[in-house]
Amino acid sequence: MSKITPLSGFPELLPDQRVVEREVIASLSRTFELHGFANIETRVVEPLDRLAKGGEIDKEIYLLRRVQAGSDDEDSSPDKTLGLHFDLTVPFARYVLENAGKLEFPFRRFQIQPAWRGERPQEGRYRQFTQADIDIVGRDELPFHHDVEVMRVMVEALDALPVPALSFQVNNRKLIQGFYRGLGLPDVTAAIRVIDKLDKLPADAVAQLLVDQAGATPEQAAVCLELATIRTSDSSFVDRVRALGVADDLLEQGLTELSAVLDGCAPVVSGHVTVEANLRIARGLDYYTGTVVEIFMAGYERLKSVGGGGRYDALASDGRSTYPGVGISFGVSRTLIPLLADGVLAGSRSVPSAVLIALVDDESRAASDAAAAALRARDIPCEVAPSAQKFGRQIRFAERRGIPFVWFPQPDGTHEVKDIRSGDQSVADPQTWTPPAQDLRPRVVTADEQKEQPS
Amino acid sequence: MSKITPLSGFPELLPDQRVVEREVIASLSRTFELHGFANIETRVVEPLDRLAKGGEIDKEIYLLRRVQAGSDDEDSSPDKTLGLHFDLTVPFARYVLENAGKLEFPFRRFQIQPAWRGERPQEGRYRQFTQADIDIVGRDELPFHHDVEVMRVMVEALDALPVPALSFQVNNRKLIQGFYRGLGLPDVTAAIRVIDKLDKLPADAVAQLLVDQAGATPEQAAVCLELATIRTSDSSFVDRVRALGVADDLLEQGLTELSAVLDGCAPVVSGHVTVEANLRIARGLDYYTGTVVEIFMAGYERLKSVGGGGRYDALASDGRSTYPGVGISFGVSRTLIPLLADGVLAGSRSVPSAVLIALVDDESRAASDAAAAALRARDIPCEVAPSAQKFGRQIRFAERRGIPFVWFPQPDGTHEVKDIRSGDQSVADPQTWTPPAQDLRPRVVTADEQKEQPS
Repeated sequence: MSKITPLSGFPELLPDQRVVEREVIASLSRTFELHGFANIETRVVEPLDRLAKGGEIDKEIYLLRRVQAGSDDEDSSPDKTLGLHFDLTVPFARYVLENAGKLEFPFRRFQIQPAWRGERPQEGRYRQFTQADIDIVGRDELPFHHDVEVMRVMVEALDALPVPALSFQVNNRKLIQGFYRGLGLPDVTAAIRVIDKLDKLPADAVAQLLVDQAGATPEQAAVCLELATIRTSDSSFVDRVRALGVADDLLEQGLTELSAVLDGCAPVVSGHVTVEANLRIARGLDYYTGTVVEIFMAGYERLKSVGGGGRYDALASDGRSTYPGVGISFGVSRTLIPLLADGVLAGSRSVPSAVLIALVDDESRAASDAAAAALRARDIPCEVAPSAQKFGRQIRFAERRGIPFVWFPQPDGTHEVKDIRSGDQSVADPQTWTPPAQDLRPRVVTADEQKEQPS
Repeated sequence: MSKITPLSGFPELLPDQRVVEREVIASLSRTFELHGFANIETRVVEPLDRLAKGGEIDKEIYLLRRVQAGSDDEDSSPDKTLGLHFDLTVPFARYVLENAGKLEFPFRRFQIQPAWRGERPQEGRYRQFTQADIDIVGRDELPFHHDVEVMRVMVEALDALPVPALSFQVNNRKLIQGFYRGLGLPDVTAAIRVIDKLDKLPADAVAQLLVDQAGATPEQAAVCLELATIRTSDSSFVDRVRALGVADDLLEQGLTELSAVLDGCAPVVSGHVTVEANLRIARGLDYYTGTVVEIFMAGYERLKSVGGGGRYDALASDGRSTYPGVGISFGVSRTLIPLLADGVLAGSRSVPSAVLIALVDDESRAASDAAAAALRARDIPCEVAPSAQKFGRQIRFAERRGIPFVWFPQPDGTHEVKDIRSGDQSVADPQTWTPPAQDLRPRVVTADEQKEQPS
């Protein structure tokens, strides 16, 4: 038997940390549902030929095999071999195709599940990680206004989270492609792939790559870099692009769409979540065809984006129909695990119980159970002390778990309840007493709040 | 690319079916938390040497390997090879050992996650399936009253579910072991393993096995079978066991404990969930040492048990401490997937939206968005129609998704809302109008309710 040590890349949370993750997932779900997104959960495995597309990610796929494989599992062909999904987009595309006849389009769905990638673990990058995805998918067509809708919903969803400030940096593939085409670049696709490296390489290295790999002249490369520096929080980017003197129909369409996204998000942005046009955002993946977005968290720029997504004209296709979509993925683990490790977020206690019912002696367990049942009947989580130790020890039992109240059934049938933080103790009726709302359930506590209330 | 067909043993739910699963999981979580159980989630993988114990299940374990393995993954030794967990007990035991210094004992936890077994798929048996487990674990000791507690909590949790009637069939390993010992059986462990086959083999075959494999005389085998026929819903089983004339200290302890479980559950049993002593329940697994339970669902006896568990004196041990525990696992997939397939349970609609906001024309999308925002601000899930089709088509759009209300912004700035089931339409204010509570969110609908309201 191996000694028990954590597995690198497979982080797990302690109960009080899990409080934070669950509250974040519940909050995201609430917002998504308010906007009509239905939840689905897909199986964790897909046939290898659906996962592996010849890209960089292929070698990070975890394949499954049985310890002792049976007949139908022996087959190691790519359509029989199963692998763990590495995102929630591939399984969603397959789910849409498999169930197309039973779904109503446009289909709004959210999905919050783990995914797996066998990459080198580092802060924000794990081998098992939870993502929260929303997508809207149409059959054969999906009007542009859904791009605005998806962006707004994710802005609202993340605005409700107790995380540091977030910035949505938006661009549009039509804008870039049209600009490069209008500029006369010979290989627009290669140029997009190169410009996407601006967050890793210095500008002059990217300019050289544009010349070497995308066939640009040094002058064209300079204009491409110029475009990539444009970053505005309103539609003023349009004039700055026009000032570069490139004309193209697709560029115009991209400018219009990107303006519409910014205008559409204006009513929902806040001091906490901002949306800006950033013309250097390209996103490497081939399937984006319009709006693209990456999300960054203040103070955690080292994590790179904590979310992203965009418009794809063909999420999936089954020969008869094509399914265009637009979606955004938020990295729940990528965001929360560093915040929990840094103590920026914490759970207010490690157990759901708001009240510990003390045990006077072993014979009176029934009385303590009855008090607990009365509190639970009114949705107050509580637990009964495991043994009839001295009250001081029972209070410390509560303290160690962060349980704020200890309840004392009295020999005469009355009850008293003590707030163990203040020491206040008073007579209480299990049929009517209620803790303050902020004590009822474990809460997410931010670093600032933790400073305010030293324990 | 393979043609898209469902993967045998990996069932997935449509959005309206997922409503049922989510509601069941939320309901279970509510009850567990009211009783002070903290939620945890473990990674899905464990080292193979922690999973494989030489039992039948070993060959059903799914192992992981990377498509292109890196340095540290090449190692195929049992402590480096990773497999998917096949239950939630093995990972929980490892989690307790790994985090023992950071947990407070007794530690109450619930865990609702999928597990994987590469077994032959059949109704109620899947290769990926979700379980809901509760356990209470102590360090070095765990008083017996927690056996009663765990049983009561699971009775309450399942009583709140909209599933057919459930029966908890309880026994006690001390009772069986003490009885066999008092009877003079030479191999008590073998006898327990044999008696556990009573649900698969006829009684006389089991009697023969007791002779062949447990060294029983035919007379002893007959008394063992006699014990196994005892089944009572109150403590009257005690007298029936005593009438068999076997005396043993451990037997007495088992009788006392089993009586205490039945008495302790009496206040929470109902017409929907019953608890009875059934002295033929043994549970094959070696690690149970006291209370054992299996749960059966009325009309679905063919699924065998839909849950089970018991007392184990050593969930885990790290050389310094031993961690005794008591827990019950409920098969969420095993229970729900057959009920959904049979139409016993269904979701009331496929989308969260209670209201579809109609779109008068493409220019008035902002007005419809504003009405939607006003409803959402008061927690009413809604969506805006994707295009300004004729109202009849927009109503059918709502109908196909089961959305009960369609909202019409009027050209004069007032609003009307239509209940599309009754056809009633009336003036409404987006700042104050609220749908009836039962229409606010998708609900679980039982077959009986479905019959009552034909759509």
